[in-house]
Amino acid sequence: MSNDKFDEKTMARQNGVVQPLLTDLYQITMAYAYWKSGKVNDVAVFDLFFRTNPFQGEFTIFAGLEECLKFLQNFHYSDSDIKYLRETLPTTIEPEFFDYLKDLTCKDITLSAIEEGSVVFPRVPLLRVEGPLIIAQLLETTLLTLVNFASLMATNAARYRMFAGKNISLLEFGLRRAQGPDGGLSASKYSYIGGFDGTSNVLAGKMFNIPVKGTHAHSYVTSFSTLDDIQRVTLQHAQTHQQCNLLEIAMEWRNRLSPLLDASTEEASDGELAALISYALAFPTGFLALVDTYDVKRYRLDGLHRQHINGHSGNRNCGTNGRINSPTIRSRRGYTVERTLRSGLLNFCAVALALHDCGYRAVGIRIDSGDLAYLSVLARDTFKRIADTHDLPWFAKLTIVASNDINEETILSLHEQGHAIDCFGIGTHLVTCQRQPALGCVYKLVEINGQPRIKLSQDVGKVTIPGHKEAYRLFGADGHALIDLLQRSSEAAPEVGQKVLCRHPFQESKRAYVIPSKVEHLYKVYWKDGYVSIAPKPLSEVRERVQASLRTLRQDIKRNLNPTPYKVAVSDDLYTFIHDLWLQNAPIGELS
Amino acid sequence: MSNDKFDEKTMARQNGVVQPLLTDLYQITMAYAYWKSGKVNDVAVFDLFFRTNPFQGEFTIFAGLEECLKFLQNFHYSDSDIKYLRETLPTTIEPEFFDYLKDLTCKDITLSAIEEGSVVFPRVPLLRVEGPLIIAQLLETTLLTLVNFASLMATNAARYRMFAGKNISLLEFGLRRAQGPDGGLSASKYSYIGGFDGTSNVLAGKMFNIPVKGTHAHSYVTSFSTLDDIQRVTLQHAQTHQQCNLLEIAMEWRNRLSPLLDASTEEASDGELAALISYALAFPTGFLALVDTYDVKRYRLDGLHRQHINGHSGNRNCGTNGRINSPTIRSRRGYTVERTLRSGLLNFCAVALALHDCGYRAVGIRIDSGDLAYLSVLARDTFKRIADTHDLPWFAKLTIVASNDINEETILSLHEQGHAIDCFGIGTHLVTCQRQPALGCVYKLVEINGQPRIKLSQDVGKVTIPGHKEAYRLFGADGHALIDLLQRSSEAAPEVGQKVLCRHPFQESKRAYVIPSKVEHLYKVYWKDGYVSIAPKPLSEVRERVQASLRTLRQDIKRNLNPTPYKVAVSDDLYTFIHDLWLQNAPIGELS
Repeated sequence: MSNDKFDEKTMARQNGVVQPLLTDLYQITMAYAYWKSGKVNDVAVFDLFFRTNPFQGEFTIFAGLEECLKFLQNFHYSDSDIKYLRETLPTTIEPEFFDYLKDLTCKDITLSAIEEGSVVFPRVPLLRVEGPLIIAQLLETTLLTLVNFASLMATNAARYRMFAGKNISLLEFGLRRAQGPDGGLSASKYSYIGGFDGTSNVLAGKMFNIPVKGTHAHSYVTSFSTLDDIQRVTLQHAQTHQQCNLLEIAMEWRNRLSPLLDASTEEASDGELAALISYALAFPTGFLALVDTYDVKRYRLDGLHRQHINGHSGNRNCGTNGRINSPTIRSRRGYTVERTLRSGLLNFCAVALALHDCGYRAVGIRIDSGDLAYLSVLARDTFKRIADTHDLPWFAKLTIVASNDINEETILSLHEQGHAIDCFGIGTHLVTCQRQPALGCVYKLVEINGQPRIKLSQDVGKVTIPGHKEAYRLFGADGHALIDLLQRSSEAAPEVGQKVLCRHPFQESKRAYVIPSKVEHLYKVYWKDGYVSIAPKPLSEVRERVQASLRTLRQDIKRNLNPTPYKVAVSDDLYTFIHDLWLQNAPIGELS
Repeated sequence: MSNDKFDEKTMARQNGVVQPLLTDLYQITMAYAYWKSGKVNDVAVFDLFFRTNPFQGEFTIFAGLEECLKFLQNFHYSDSDIKYLRETLPTTIEPEFFDYLKDLTCKDITLSAIEEGSVVFPRVPLLRVEGPLIIAQLLETTLLTLVNFASLMATNAARYRMFAGKNISLLEFGLRRAQGPDGGLSASKYSYIGGFDGTSNVLAGKMFNIPVKGTHAHSYVTSFSTLDDIQRVTLQHAQTHQQCNLLEIAMEWRNRLSPLLDASTEEASDGELAALISYALAFPTGFLALVDTYDVKRYRLDGLHRQHINGHSGNRNCGTNGRINSPTIRSRRGYTVERTLRSGLLNFCAVALALHDCGYRAVGIRIDSGDLAYLSVLARDTFKRIADTHDLPWFAKLTIVASNDINEETILSLHEQGHAIDCFGIGTHLVTCQRQPALGCVYKLVEINGQPRIKLSQDVGKVTIPGHKEAYRLFGADGHALIDLLQRSSEAAPEVGQKVLCRHPFQESKRAYVIPSKVEHLYKVYWKDGYVSIAPKPLSEVRERVQASLRTLRQDIKRNLNPTPYKVAVSDDLYTFIHDLWLQNAPIGELS
């Protein structure tokens, strides 16, 4: 196996930009058919939009625009692309077509778009692509690929953020379960945009300047068996710079804490203590430890314990279907078998207090299994008791991170039960968008050579809204968004304080007058004459835009259960335009 | 926006190889803690395996090995990686650690694996990674990322292939809905391995030498309004080289076919005819046309028609949940409103026969909406009638491609109903693995410095099988695989004709004697001493391996409904080894 085999050919991106061959073959066969039909100078307008919000919600976050701009900016078939196409397409193709392809760029394309990070709704085009029919057609698949997953991911992350609340940190931990390496990178990037605080993905941190977080795995703990496995035990005191023997101090603390924590030192694993000490020696300023490697089962008579946490648990039994099992396992003898963190908590607290004696403050713990509500409350209680008995108020506020197959429902259920978690690490459900792994954006021809085009369908939801259009968001006096309004581009924009008739695009009788207190024109031209006309904002600003945009939505539109649909309307003029065109284009049915 | 901003930093892959920073931060923090603890010379064994087959099935296809080997071969932190880590990790880290990282390679790692493309089962390690603890740990996330999605995708594709049967072509059409650009590429590659025949993804074709397929979209058809939109109408006859006027000939055929097809020429769209003619002019040898752009609704009295197609339909109403709606839409007046392909079929047949007059044979049609079973049968009947009346037997065998939100259930339902489809184009459900978008491979430490490690869990399914192991597949006299057997590496391999005791790893009483007719040692060493020791096979051979490997599985293990689990066992020696270690490591519970 030589390296050569894998060079420039094996990448979706070259120099960080998606290649133009990352498209469906039919775009290129259509381009040839257009070219051969003499449609080289035809000018088209395409709208890119979706028809249904994902995750049974009533909003979507638009993302991926910056990547689309990079794609337009760099659109160019390389010599090896042309060579491949020559070899692959039928030999009947006129060779001049390849010369034509070779010189294609996006300089004659104009791209208008909604601002990246905005809340968006079905039917309102996210992108409007205008320019030569052939080149606009050739962009379809790649633009869809870049917008679909980015928007889906940002929306998913924004939902997690909303349900977790503002005071909880959210970390993306999904790389290992993502759909391929780039699926993982995109997930990290768009989770951050959607409102996550960081990622475990180091490359995403490097590429996108996203905070990276991480501690250690169970394998780290199991790689230590006994206290002899630590070869170095001294740590320099943070202030006095004296050498401290962290092992000795921790062992002392373990003995002292044992009664307070109701855990005997025999129950605590020495291998785990060795692992935690070695980790603390490596990261005295960043000691955050996984504490659930060793279980101690406790058998209790049913019903005697834990009345305070009933019903659901947020544990790993919340499978892909979101079904939630009961928090404890009932044995046949009428006992409840219960997991505790007796080994992990005792060892952690011993090391944390030893670190404190050396002038450092521990960060906290991670729990990766079991009943997260119960265990987090148990850990918090323990930290508080130590804080009180040893007069160390900061100890009560140690960070508790929870991970392990967390999804939207787990978070809502944990909130319901009461928990003491400060931070969720979320993987599979977040990065694969398990609840709905694809967004259905489409790219539809709405005008050609100044003539509108309508795609009819038996399913009225699939009828496209024809022509070159503008989109406005109308706001009420309280600052909330009331409705998105599509108009023909020839119409005057709605004005603040002026009554606007908003109509349902397909149901004649559904109409409403709106007097907007603010009108936002949703489209800006981002790409024209071969240049990016509005520079993309840094990720952190797009991230802020998401939260600001979400704040303009009424709460009932954002809620999890039966959210209210946000209204998208058309102007009276556009309504008439659609329906006249519909009648012109629809063949008359036959009754038999 | 300058290009510089996006150069080498913005890629998951450099020169086609996944970068080592595409990992979780905790791998690097653990590496430092190990390094600082003096564990640089510790030697570890990790197993990479999954616990549950995806898609509620009882088998998985292992894929991704070639990418893992490329990753090992190129594993190296670049200067900019080191710079990023220096800036990102705590300042307390000793600078010598970065020198250590800088020189790290995989030369001391040995990777054993099952052959790529093999059928594999829960608990049997797919990869066994041996070598220095630190480097083996650093490989975890990336290996998981490379194996998880590749195997999930190959398994999904193999399931589609199985349910579609051998005689149907399967094309992957999912790029626009994939999870990012690389998600789309990986989907194309591993769908092909799993048994698909081609993809629409041009870059995947170029990179992996996969057949690419594609015709045209609805937008191509709607971009033509009238016959005047075709500017060139002549085609050179394939044999005589005379110029033929394809438009004139097609118009003539349309008139002649109208009574035979029970479709008036007024019902047929001229824009559509113009589009199909222009497409045929561009691809006279490859004319495959989308025929459902224009609907003609037919209203029929309920119950009078279509008794031959009852129950389910394979149409677009099969949503993400696989629920299947009824094939027709009932109007309130007691009529059934039905879609036909009267415009599209008439126009297609006219152009196909015109092409024939010019010495070419059309390829076929694509249907992208509606009741696919009914419409395909309708189209086939039409083709047969034309074949008969015009004595053109090949016309009866025109290809019918169906697309539009097809999933496993749609295919099974279409088979149940009877259909006349030759080829399925499958997108979203295939490429995002909608039914289960992540495979849960894990990477567990099983031995360190010759000492076995066991990860205990309250959930017995999560207990790891400790130690350095070998895996064997035992076959019966009829050639079918009977059982996979894990043994300690120190044990002698099972022998053909010799009785082997196979035990359930955790249930004491579940034991069986097996006398194998063939024994396959599942592991080969693929990477050792810094070299790939077995060159990866070409994609086409891995693809054949998948089908060959699946043939060794009994049908009841592969079926869709309630498949029989395949057995994975441990030797008696390994059984004892596991349970002794378990007792040594499990703390004794407490009864209160």
